[in-house]
Amino acid sequence: MKSLFITFEGPEGAGKTTIIKMIEQYFVNKEIPFLSTREPGGIRISESIREIILRPDHTEMDSRTEALLYAAARRQHLVEKVIPALKEGKVVLCDRFIDSSLAYQGVGRNLGIEEVRQINEFAIDGTMPDLTIFFDLDPSIGLKRVHDANGREINRLDLENIEFHKRVYEGYLQVVDSDRKRFCLVDASKSIEEVYSQVLQAIENKIN
Amino acid sequence: MKSLFITFEGPEGAGKTTIIKMIEQYFVNKEIPFLSTREPGGIRISESIREIILRPDHTEMDSRTEALLYAAARRQHLVEKVIPALKEGKVVLCDRFIDSSLAYQGVGRNLGIEEVRQINEFAIDGTMPDLTIFFDLDPSIGLKRVHDANGREINRLDLENIEFHKRVYEGYLQVVDSDRKRFCLVDASKSIEEVYSQVLQAIENKIN
Repeated sequence: MKSLFITFEGPEGAGKTTIIKMIEQYFVNKEIPFLSTREPGGIRISESIREIILRPDHTEMDSRTEALLYAAARRQHLVEKVIPALKEGKVVLCDRFIDSSLAYQGVGRNLGIEEVRQINEFAIDGTMPDLTIFFDLDPSIGLKRVHDANGREINRLDLENIEFHKRVYEGYLQVVDSDRKRFCLVDASKSIEEVYSQVLQAIENKIN
Repeated sequence: MKSLFITFEGPEGAGKTTIIKMIEQYFVNKEIPFLSTREPGGIRISESIREIILRPDHTEMDSRTEALLYAAARRQHLVEKVIPALKEGKVVLCDRFIDSSLAYQGVGRNLGIEEVRQINEFAIDGTMPDLTIFFDLDPSIGLKRVHDANGREINRLDLENIEFHKRVYEGYLQVVDSDRKRFCLVDASKSIEEVYSQVLQAIENKIN
């Protein structure tokens, strides 16, 4: 069995989590050894780094500091969890990876895609995904879905927020465009069944 | 008063701390506003990052994770402490900066000078020192000095350690060689008075 590194990217509310669960079930049924993970993924150094990033009172956090910390947490999770699983010949499913940083820090936080790519290439040191599923969804639809799920209306702050998420979405499209071979775009506005079917087809194409 | 950013580099035991104290006194006497600092320098985000780096039980820490964490701590210290002081027109004295990472991580830990430079250039974003004093000293002499000060003999582990410090020293020489204009080399095997006089001259040349 050849290992395979698959990442899942896209805006909030695009249905990544649901689809990943379905893909896990597919691998269980097929008896294909796999690891499903997301950073920091229980890796204690990565968890400690995430704590620093997410502490609500760390309002003085510079966005370059933040990007370096995300890259550090990514590195340790990769070394301790992803690479060993790939070495065992497993399929690794990872919910968000380098492309999230390119879109969120590079474009959302205006640091520049190429600059954020530099520090992430240092972190990854060649372990790029074989396949990245991009859940293509208008970020305002994604936000509405998240809110409907939480049972609350969209407020003024959310609307400001949407400008940020629109920039992130544009960032994603740039990143996808720069590496068409690695990416598979799925139309995430479709039903769960249709999205699942598209994602599964892309994965099966890679496996066979 | 024009601001000036001065960093101090070199192996352990080269006398940096002593000389920096003397330079501070010089600025006090001359009534020149200055800030003397070293990372993490009381900056709470940088201190938290350092804690993760230095925890003795974090033996699983990958050297790329470590290099990214040092760069993150550097960024936050720079943004909160160094840049504001430079904006106020102060002279900033900083005990170790980017060149320590190039020598210790880039060469000591075999990550490569250029790779470590990449992530540090992201962290620094153009705020390079105007002058860097390199305390040139054979690392075995430096180690002996540290041990004499602590009143203990050099043991087997120290001798293994010395191979690491020799690599770091060679790394420093490469870094100095790549940017001769910024560096001032002082012969740190000389007496404190002679070293001080050389350092002071280099600083006065920059000020005038």
